Amino acid sequence: MRALCIDGSSLALQERATPSLESGRAIVRMRIAGVCKTDLEIARGYMNFAGVLGHEGMGEVAEGPSEWVGKRVVSEINFACGNCPACEQNLGRHCPARQVMGILAADGTFAEYVSVPVANLHAVPDRIDDERASFIEPLAAAFEVVEQLGTVAGQRAIVLGDGKLGLLVAQVLDEAGARVLAVGHHADHLALLSSRGIETREASEFRPADEPRADLVVEATGSAAALAGALAATRPRGRLVLKTTVAEHLPIDLAPVVIDEIQIVGSRCGPFAPAIEALESGAIDVAGLIEEKFPLSRAEEALERAARRGSRKILIDCQDG
Amino acid sequence: MRALCIDGSSLALQERATPSLESGRAIVRMRIAGVCKTDLEIARGYMNFAGVLGHEGMGEVAEGPSEWVGKRVVSEINFACGNCPACEQNLGRHCPARQVMGILAADGTFAEYVSVPVANLHAVPDRIDDERASFIEPLAAAFEVVEQLGTVAGQRAIVLGDGKLGLLVAQVLDEAGARVLAVGHHADHLALLSSRGIETREASEFRPADEPRADLVVEATGSAAALAGALAATRPRGRLVLKTTVAEHLPIDLAPVVIDEIQIVGSRCGPFAPAIEALESGAIDVAGLIEEKFPLSRAEEALERAARRGSRKILIDCQDG
Repeated sequence: MRALCIDGSSLALQERATPSLESGRAIVRMRIAGVCKTDLEIARGYMNFAGVLGHEGMGEVAEGPSEWVGKRVVSEINFACGNCPACEQNLGRHCPARQVMGILAADGTFAEYVSVPVANLHAVPDRIDDERASFIEPLAAAFEVVEQLGTVAGQRAIVLGDGKLGLLVAQVLDEAGARVLAVGHHADHLALLSSRGIETREASEFRPADEPRADLVVEATGSAAALAGALAATRPRGRLVLKTTVAEHLPIDLAPVVIDEIQIVGSRCGPFAPAIEALESGAIDVAGLIEEKFPLSRAEEALERAARRGSRKILIDCQDG
Repeated sequence: MRALCIDGSSLALQERATPSLESGRAIVRMRIAGVCKTDLEIARGYMNFAGVLGHEGMGEVAEGPSEWVGKRVVSEINFACGNCPACEQNLGRHCPARQVMGILAADGTFAEYVSVPVANLHAVPDRIDDERASFIEPLAAAFEVVEQLGTVAGQRAIVLGDGKLGLLVAQVLDEAGARVLAVGHHADHLALLSSRGIETREASEFRPADEPRADLVVEATGSAAALAGALAATRPRGRLVLKTTVAEHLPIDLAPVVIDEIQIVGSRCGPFAPAIEALESGAIDVAGLIEEKFPLSRAEEALERAARRGSRKILIDCQDG
């Protein structure tokens, strides 16, 4: 099969052996994969990953338990051991022995086929088309914010960053009843939110020092440099959710965290169930986030396009080309 | 009156006008003040404070409402406006218009007299002697950790730093039912904890990578450089409490915060009531923390002694000398 592979910092579409079925696993014939900013970081050497890139996407089960074969599915990306204290506490996403699809010791979704644990599969309801279904993983990461914070209804929330994840987080917080202000650099991205009644602001016009500080700030800019501004936008005893993972290490003044007793909440992968439900009901719109779909044969070009400043979601059609 | 004053970076014992009584205030005749590491930072220019240094201590009310005059008291250090949204939410310690005794726009405790709002006074019960009472403010800062975290019973907690605050935090967490490991550089400090049945470890023998990661880590080393180790000691989805405020800004890798979904909780001043209760019942021991008491006339020397590596609590007798 064809697959977009990374080894060191060498990225290339390669011919690979199709994965064979093992006990407890399913072979998914990929249909649509999504390119995430993390893929670009990994392609630059973050995580020292070697293998098939990609962790977002959907397909149909080609081989595996008979009750799954032929079903349209998405797979959770953390492959947990199932036996450790973290797994016993239902924290498989934090299993220290986990593999992570396309990120850590497990091949990913930019391929014709991928092998995943059956336990990780979720069926895609008929009402969610293939393209929307390919957003379930990043939407789950947006729902993780609400999962971690609990009730946010009525709280003033600022979402910094109008990339794909920021746009999803702003919608999820809005749906959960927070009073959201989304701040970003891209007028066309922000327009997707304002068309849904969410307040937006161009980043150049947002000065934390001049604003009422928010109960809740989500840092989803993808830039380590944004932290100081994010802290300044958070009220004393408020909560700042970090969604950005970058290799960069910047000097940080942590005194405001202590003086203002701010809670910083690291946030990564999230629960698939509410993401599937929100797409099925139409509560969250993702179709407007799609920029372009590339065939797998042009996957490298897809990554280049995704790296362009201001790009929306780039999808890969894993069976086309 | 005599008072230890700071202006820019010039620290000196000076003759000052005794504060006069204003509406809503009380004049406290100071008995014992305590030197805190923050005082040393302020003496080096942190906060650009000008005025009488010192925020820990106790005394008796010399002038003020008749029901208070003659009473032994301690004063909360944040002087809140009482009218803003923070104050209305009972968050006077975070009032944006607050003055902070000996730290921000209000004279402090290294003096014969200090003026404080009557609302900030707490009576010292007879069973707490003067020296112990001078620990109420730092002990309240230790109780703030439990106040912010809620239940910690049964949780594995690591306290990094065996300075005065670290020793108090370790005791408070132990009393609250956490399974505490205290890590520090000073065998004599750690011995104070092990004599109370708290597990201790020399910092040179503590390697986070080789340890089971804790549910809860308190960073009270007073060094910005300790953060990476503190993060490494915190389990995924665990909580890291920051108690250190320093002027230093160090580069930090925040990716582990996101990947492990760690919560970082900034923690500053705390509630006086549980601190007073714990000293009255004897649940927390502070007498063993005292190193030496200096007369106010030798206050500068007291600060020099407090700056020595490994010093325990230095007290100032505000009426002696």
